Amino acid sequence: MAEWTHLNAQGRARMVDISEKEPTRRTAVARAVVRMRRETLRNILEGRVEKGDVLAVAQVAGVMAAKRTPDLIPMCHPIPLAKVDLRFREVEDRPGNGWSELEVESEVSTVASTGVEMEALTAASVAALTVYDMCKAADRGMEVVSVGLIRKTGGKSGDYRRWPEEGDAP
Amino acid sequence: MAEWTHLNAQGRARMVDISEKEPTRRTAVARAVVRMRRETLRNILEGRVEKGDVLAVAQVAGVMAAKRTPDLIPMCHPIPLAKVDLRFREVEDRPGNGWSELEVESEVSTVASTGVEMEALTAASVAALTVYDMCKAADRGMEVVSVGLIRKTGGKSGDYRRWPEEGDAP
Amino acid sequence: MAEWTHLNAQGRARMVDISEKEPTRRTAVARAVVRMRRETLRNILEGRVEKGDVLAVAQVAGVMAAKRTPDLIPMCHPIPLAKVDLRFREVEDRPGNGWSELEVESEVSTVASTGVEMEALTAASVAALTVYDMCKAADRGMEVVSVGLIRKTGGKSGDYRRWPEEGDAP
Amino acid sequence: MAEWTHLNAQGRARMVDISEKEPTRRTAVARAVVRMRRETLRNILEGRVEKGDVLAVAQVAGVMAAKRTPDLIPMCHPIPLAKVDLRFREVEDRPGNGWSELEVESEVSTVASTGVEMEALTAASVAALTVYDMCKAADRGMEVVSVGLIRKTGGKSGDYRRWPEEGDAP
Amino acid sequence: MAEWTHLNAQGRARMVDISEKEPTRRTAVARAVVRMRRETLRNILEGRVEKGDVLAVAQVAGVMAAKRTPDLIPMCHPIPLAKVDLRFREVEDRPGNGWSELEVESEVSTVASTGVEMEALTAASVAALTVYDMCKAADRGMEVVSVGLIRKTGGKSGDYRRWPEEGDAP
Amino acid sequence: MAEWTHLNAQGRARMVDISEKEPTRRTAVARAVVRMRRETLRNILEGRVEKGDVLAVAQVAGVMAAKRTPDLIPMCHPIPLAKVDLRFREVEDRPGNGWSELEVESEVSTVASTGVEMEALTAASVAALTVYDMCKAADRGMEVVSVGLIRKTGGKSGDYRRWPEEGDAP
Repeated sequence: MAEWTHLNAQGRARMVDISEKEPTRRTAVARAVVRMRRETLRNILEGRVEKGDVLAVAQVAGVMAAKRTPDLIPMCHPIPLAKVDLRFREVEDRPGNGWSELEVESEVSTVASTGVEMEALTAASVAALTVYDMCKAADRGMEVVSVGLIRKTGGKSGDYRRWPEEGDAP
Repeated sequence: MAEWTHLNAQGRARMVDISEKEPTRRTAVARAVVRMRRETLRNILEGRVEKGDVLAVAQVAGVMAAKRTPDLIPMCHPIPLAKVDLRFREVEDRPGNGWSELEVESEVSTVASTGVEMEALTAASVAALTVYDMCKAADRGMEVVSVGLIRKTGGKSGDYRRWPEEGDAP
Repeated sequence: MAEWTHLNAQGRARMVDISEKEPTRRTAVARAVVRMRRETLRNILEGRVEKGDVLAVAQVAGVMAAKRTPDLIPMCHPIPLAKVDLRFREVEDRPGNGWSELEVESEVSTVASTGVEMEALTAASVAALTVYDMCKAADRGMEVVSVGLIRKTGGKSGDYRRWPEEGDAP
Repeated sequence: MAEWTHLNAQGRARMVDISEKEPTRRTAVARAVVRMRRETLRNILEGRVEKGDVLAVAQVAGVMAAKRTPDLIPMCHPIPLAKVDLRFREVEDRPGNGWSELEVESEVSTVASTGVEMEALTAASVAALTVYDMCKAADRGMEVVSVGLIRKTGGKSGDYRRWPEEGDAP
Repeated sequence: MAEWTHLNAQGRARMVDISEKEPTRRTAVARAVVRMRRETLRNILEGRVEKGDVLAVAQVAGVMAAKRTPDLIPMCHPIPLAKVDLRFREVEDRPGNGWSELEVESEVSTVASTGVEMEALTAASVAALTVYDMCKAADRGMEVVSVGLIRKTGGKSGDYRRWPEEGDAP
Repeated sequence: MAEWTHLNAQGRARMVDISEKEPTRRTAVARAVVRMRRETLRNILEGRVEKGDVLAVAQVAGVMAAKRTPDLIPMCHPIPLAKVDLRFREVEDRPGNGWSELEVESEVSTVASTGVEMEALTAASVAALTVYDMCKAADRGMEVVSVGLIRKTGGKSGDYRRWPEEGDAP
């Protein structure tokens, strides 16, 4: 019988062991920003998109996507989720460039042995893509211009807040 | 930067936070009733449906559907399930109308911070639809005539029993 | 080697062969009816349910459930779907009993070798259960009182219309 | 019986009917860009990330996510996919800011009655989030800084190419 | 802007393009064999396993697994399936060793641009694992001793039959 | 009202109740063995398979399949997983027969009220089928020749080790 030849040693992708970690309450807040034509954002906010209430659909999509995260991100642990919420706001128009931005913010909580950063990022990403899907027939130039973590709490690495300087970060 | 404009305030759908609630043992029992021609029910009970053992397939479908509940009901929490069971019985023929009824009863348990009412309802619904699917070629007039909760236990709202007057309710 | 003993002959559940059937356009319309307290329906229609815009969430849930049908109904063929839509209406109060009814109607189309009856029924059922989920904290007595096919078109068995006498059937 | 009251008229989200459209060959190319510390990108490229071969995992995650798109984007049609591929490249360091960028490009093809733009965007997004997941322990400041369409072909709206000025766009 | 550096050239995993291939009728037959104690097989065949009708559950599990194949096998194309069926038989006891074998045979058909070999193998594998799951409390030594293709038809590589010498191979 | 007639008594398949069991740490190790032509294994190990880095893809597929286990095995409880890992090794060629064998070993851990034997077996099986899928164009005679449990720990039945005589069992 041959030695364990570590055939895959350099490619060792695994779901790391969290069985020795205590379950604690953890939260994560993430956001995604969709850049679009000013008129597109107006239509979304005023409910004039032919395909329906874009934000209502995006909110449901985001909540459901949070629950699908371990099906999508290969090394992500399947854990119960205690809360998922999303909210949307218009980001102030950047004058002169003709673009507007819609910000999607997601918040996820759990009581578990690992955090929910990926769940929050997945929720925000999928909500942003849903906005894109429902408006793409009218606005071909849309782009998701940012997906990132805002803050998280709980876990051994302690609380983390990104962009603390941004007063508008919730 | 604009205020949070609560764009979606009236449409705020979220998975409510249960992270502060203690996990406790909870159970729910639900039922679905399928109305069909008397002959159809006879064929089901006697294993003469061409597509196979209808109740065996419906039972597996119901158990698996309970596990898919958070994928289907958007604001439903993903939680571990401790038990899923289904049973079937014939409801006494209502004389004179030519219809018979098959009752599907589902029972789900968990130890979690929220209940399993939706899991039990989903299990019963999908089992009923599976019966419908396997018999629809022979009986076009089938209808699910009731899907509802029978009883539940655990949780802060205490035990609940519907239709207490029905002696046969389990 | 032993004979094929048809161990499972009586329980033969299989996805029947449709590979010889021509793909044609097919549609199905189904409905589910949720009975609830009059006040609950008023709150849904006026957007006063704390958990959010119930019908917007139910609509998304129903559309997504149509796509999950082959994952739920064991012998249902996985096929592409060309259209899924849902609509809601209030059914006239039955005087004197204190109950109101919300009707969910789903419509599904495909170009395939088999029909979409189960997809329409699954969409309507899951939309109804979603309404239930979002209102159950306020109205414990809700019940789905009907899930059935309204009509279907296409396929070798020809068009079918149930309840032709009901002028309001769409 | 009450009129159809279009309860949900403003919120009408539906999967639009494509049953009258001819199936044709369609492709879409999308990309996602992940900004990270220069050292993080070096570790990815040289296979020194503790959790494994980041790009191999991200590639599989992207391919699988393309197939899950209709489960994630509510109004997206479930269609067969004929091809899914992803590739990765390092984007030239922007001097002076300390950040490097990894570009994920996805390509999806189908023969269907609707396009695969959302499938390509979902594949690129999930691959980018997978990179994030596998490196986040070492680099807290990562951010997806762009998710967008590069080009698509087929369909009645004709071919579309974004950023034609970018010589490097594939 | 850097050259496409084919970062992942050696690890290029992709879903190969089948968009130029004509859809044709294709079938595949696979089998899985579970070795178990003689008494265990007797209990299965006589319906005396406490957890239920093992073969009925395994059959449903196999049919449903065939439909989930593209969610499981990363580079497998999502295609419609026209037929899925499973059957079970007892393989003659090998005298003297105390083991019996249960054979699971799956058959899958499609009209598509690629074959259904993986769907048939997945169906047989999952049905075999389901048998294992339902009997493992009573028989710890069970083992799946073979999962392989029996034959396939259709496609440019022509028909293929393995083990042609086995007269009983279907 | 009729008696509960236990219509399905002989076919009672249920997810057994584990709500009274204490969550404890549990692990399971399983393996699958794929027999193939010697040249095929050489190509896998040297990264010369056209479809990509076979083992990297199989590893991701196995980890993701572990998480899908309750979606596949009907009576399997949905539980959180704390760890999933896979490794691969070449089994010594059996001289003279021209075949080589690749062994896939999976390891799964949890802190839960039931074990993870099925998760480990599913991970190993799906990883083996993924190897098969990626090499089947070049080697038609591949076969999975074993899927079984190696050992498990935790739970009331105590630790279990199969094949203790095999020094190479990890």
